[in-house]
Amino acid sequence: MGETVVLRSLLGDALRETRLQQQRTLREVSSAARVSLGYLSEVERGQKEASSELLASICRALGVRLSDVLRDVSEELAVFEPHPEPHPVPVLEVVPEPAPVSAVLSAA
Amino acid sequence: MGETVVLRSLLGDALRETRLQQQRTLREVSSAARVSLGYLSEVERGQKEASSELLASICRALGVRLSDVLRDVSEELAVFEPHPEPHPVPVLEVVPEPAPVSAVLSAA
Repeated sequence: MGETVVLRSLLGDALRETRLQQQRTLREVSSAARVSLGYLSEVERGQKEASSELLASICRALGVRLSDVLRDVSEELAVFEPHPEPHPVPVLEVVPEPAPVSAVLSAA
Repeated sequence: MGETVVLRSLLGDALRETRLQQQRTLREVSSAARVSLGYLSEVERGQKEASSELLASICRALGVRLSDVLRDVSEELAVFEPHPEPHPVPVLEVVPEPAPVSAVLSAA
């Protein structure tokens, strides 16, 4: 996927930034979160997907809410994400206007 | 983890809800996202962590932005998440006021 900005990388960056702002080491935070130092390091570098539980645990260890981290990350991701073609949502209550007779005749 | 609301479940609910609003089947969306039907089903039910790439692919297939889904999910998650004890951020530039002499004396 190369250049694509992936959620994993943005999450890792956010966690790492939070830890560094607190001037804490990988060792400290991984121990508080009960994850291995290597795992936390890989998550921070965007090399490993953190499971929901471990993400929650790392956030707890950092004293931040996962929901706050996610909101920040979603804003960063939005900068890179193009607006996709929306899939049309069926709207059941719309009653189509009848086609004018001339259009029906010319389509036949 | 039992009762704990995990990110995985909220994400799955959000993806499933989006798909149902579009009145599309698991088969349709999994095929458009190039994931197996079983995988998408497990992700929707919060039974499997989706990788960042597959999450992006499912969102593309649904015509929604992952960043928008994440923002919505972060808001839902916030309802369940208690505010953790924040870790004190070292503030280097604060110069503490000198304690009054009387306080120093009484502490001694």
